[in-house]
Amino acid sequence: MVSAKMYELGTKKSTIRTIFEFGRKRAAEVGEENIFDFSLGNPNVPTPDFVRDAAIEILQTYEPAAVHGYTVAPGNPQVRETLAKSINERFGTNFAGKNLFVTSGAAAAITICFKALAESGDEFITFAPYFPEYKVFVESVGAELKIVKVRPEDWQIDFDDFQKLLSPKTKAVIINSPNNPSGAVYSQETIKKLTDILKQSGQEIFLICDEPYRELAYGVEVPWVTDFYKNTLVCYSYSKSFSLPGERIGYIVVPSEVADFGKIFGAIAGAARVLTHVNAPSLWQLVAAKCAGKKIDISPYERNGKLLYDGLIAAGFECVKPQGAFYLFPKALEADDYAFCERAKKYDLLLVPGADFGAPGYFRAAYCIKTETIERSLPLFKKLAAEYRS
Amino acid sequence: MVSAKMYELGTKKSTIRTIFEFGRKRAAEVGEENIFDFSLGNPNVPTPDFVRDAAIEILQTYEPAAVHGYTVAPGNPQVRETLAKSINERFGTNFAGKNLFVTSGAAAAITICFKALAESGDEFITFAPYFPEYKVFVESVGAELKIVKVRPEDWQIDFDDFQKLLSPKTKAVIINSPNNPSGAVYSQETIKKLTDILKQSGQEIFLICDEPYRELAYGVEVPWVTDFYKNTLVCYSYSKSFSLPGERIGYIVVPSEVADFGKIFGAIAGAARVLTHVNAPSLWQLVAAKCAGKKIDISPYERNGKLLYDGLIAAGFECVKPQGAFYLFPKALEADDYAFCERAKKYDLLLVPGADFGAPGYFRAAYCIKTETIERSLPLFKKLAAEYRS
Repeated sequence: MVSAKMYELGTKKSTIRTIFEFGRKRAAEVGEENIFDFSLGNPNVPTPDFVRDAAIEILQTYEPAAVHGYTVAPGNPQVRETLAKSINERFGTNFAGKNLFVTSGAAAAITICFKALAESGDEFITFAPYFPEYKVFVESVGAELKIVKVRPEDWQIDFDDFQKLLSPKTKAVIINSPNNPSGAVYSQETIKKLTDILKQSGQEIFLICDEPYRELAYGVEVPWVTDFYKNTLVCYSYSKSFSLPGERIGYIVVPSEVADFGKIFGAIAGAARVLTHVNAPSLWQLVAAKCAGKKIDISPYERNGKLLYDGLIAAGFECVKPQGAFYLFPKALEADDYAFCERAKKYDLLLVPGADFGAPGYFRAAYCIKTETIERSLPLFKKLAAEYRS
Repeated sequence: MVSAKMYELGTKKSTIRTIFEFGRKRAAEVGEENIFDFSLGNPNVPTPDFVRDAAIEILQTYEPAAVHGYTVAPGNPQVRETLAKSINERFGTNFAGKNLFVTSGAAAAITICFKALAESGDEFITFAPYFPEYKVFVESVGAELKIVKVRPEDWQIDFDDFQKLLSPKTKAVIINSPNNPSGAVYSQETIKKLTDILKQSGQEIFLICDEPYRELAYGVEVPWVTDFYKNTLVCYSYSKSFSLPGERIGYIVVPSEVADFGKIFGAIAGAARVLTHVNAPSLWQLVAAKCAGKKIDISPYERNGKLLYDGLIAAGFECVKPQGAFYLFPKALEADDYAFCERAKKYDLLLVPGADFGAPGYFRAAYCIKTETIERSLPLFKKLAAEYRS
């Protein structure tokens, strides 16, 4: 009667959802302040005042039709020009408005790219640990997702395994740096090696960069990938940088240098059309342009990350030092990360098993929460670790 | 290299787009005020002040995280409760928040329903004249769209033809009342007869009501369809009523009485997930709730419709009197409606051929434009009609 596949996708409870519901139940029993919920990637730094002020100013001073009317499918032309200029100022690039397609956030951006590119039998490659919705989105456009195995010593790329997975069927490679869930930032060296391999493949392979965490990097540079490889599509979202996840605003950068710009931009427009993403929310398009280039304060995340990292190391955990995003991805204290996360629940520590991200034996701890909650959680992590040693 | 289908969908210029571009070119030559553009369905009544005030108040007084954070996929629970209550007050229904799935406008709402329901080999039925994107959206979910032929005497339903198209493959029937492009509102009698046929079919057929124009009805009632038939899904958008087409906000009503509520709501959630519509823009969710039940002023549209209708009748056109939306759908003055619309361009009258909506021999004139423009266009319509008589 309904699509069995859609029913399954809409009702199979995710691990994070199950953890979330457990947290709500426990909070009702023991009080909100006694739950240490590291499960959600919801930004806790408030939306910057300049964003709110820009939205209010636009609502108060612009003609309503200019704010709320349909924009053309790729977005308001002036907004696209402004955003392109801002990207150029930051990265020394040479984009124009025509190189941007404004979208309803990064999930829409990447799915539009997948749908635009995928032909029957195509394969997409990504790297564990990875955002699990990639699999759902890639399969929904009729392609197959191949996963390169982890490189846990630094969460960079296992190039040997990558080269094994490359095939004539490879349509695109998806990278996510700064990474959810590992917190790693791909270095210049990693990006150079990756793009060299793509160049040497003799195929037109696209590199799709999913970059919602671009601005959340702590003391390291996040390489701008179009500098390295012409067939690069950059997907961006304001969800994390401006703490606007509910408003759904982002964009795709399509460089003029990609193999056949017209074909790709046209296919992106077609994919946006059938996915009914023809017009990203128009007020937020204007706000993004008005706030282009404004600096955000990432110090609360940096502070939280350091606090949690130092605390876990002191408690005896093994963990690669995070360089970006707002996640730690430490090794679980037993091989079965599900069992480990279950055991952590005894202390009301809510953690997500690494297997959910294609990396069994690890766990994700999102530190976009109150600093004080992290402080109070550290003795509990110590107790948990002590249990494993006894 | 890219999906050929997506490229085609993204680049094949629509008739309306071609007309729009012609209009821009002519405006540059003869001045904006000398172009009579009846081609676009973009609301010209400004967004009501109460909508703007609600948005500003929310931005100024709510916690940013409560405004801009992720909502759960079906939408903010309190918003859904408020909207359900408002629907109940207007239509005497008994919905709760769980019966609503908030979406990014009506295009997303209908496409989510199509995707949720469609299985391989399914057919969807709609009625000419019809919104041409139905075909794109239905085909994009792997189903086939069957078109019931026109009933030009009143733009209600040709039930004989409808019954011929009903088959064991029929998954759903799509209606759009008030109708784009005909301006017709389906009467109680039409809805009763349609739903009686569906009941007698012995199949679980869904009725999808695409209702972005619900509030734009002039002196006639728009029947609330869930009163007539249990397997009804109502898709709504604030694009026209609140003049917010760029903001993408609407909802799906899923009555508890539908055959297997859990299955259908679950499949809708799955479809929203793969179409990356998991969270309608969160500020606009709150605005919709804050403005629930507020009355809008449709008199500018009603005045325009009457003025254009009377003018066209006086000029010798045949046209069913519009009852809703903001379109007239008169008979073209020659059998070839494309040729007719080309000829109208000589007078800078920009009209859309009816064939684009599955009704050759007619044309659409959108009257959501300045009243003064309509007034000045009437002598030109007269001249055009005179040409055909000479």
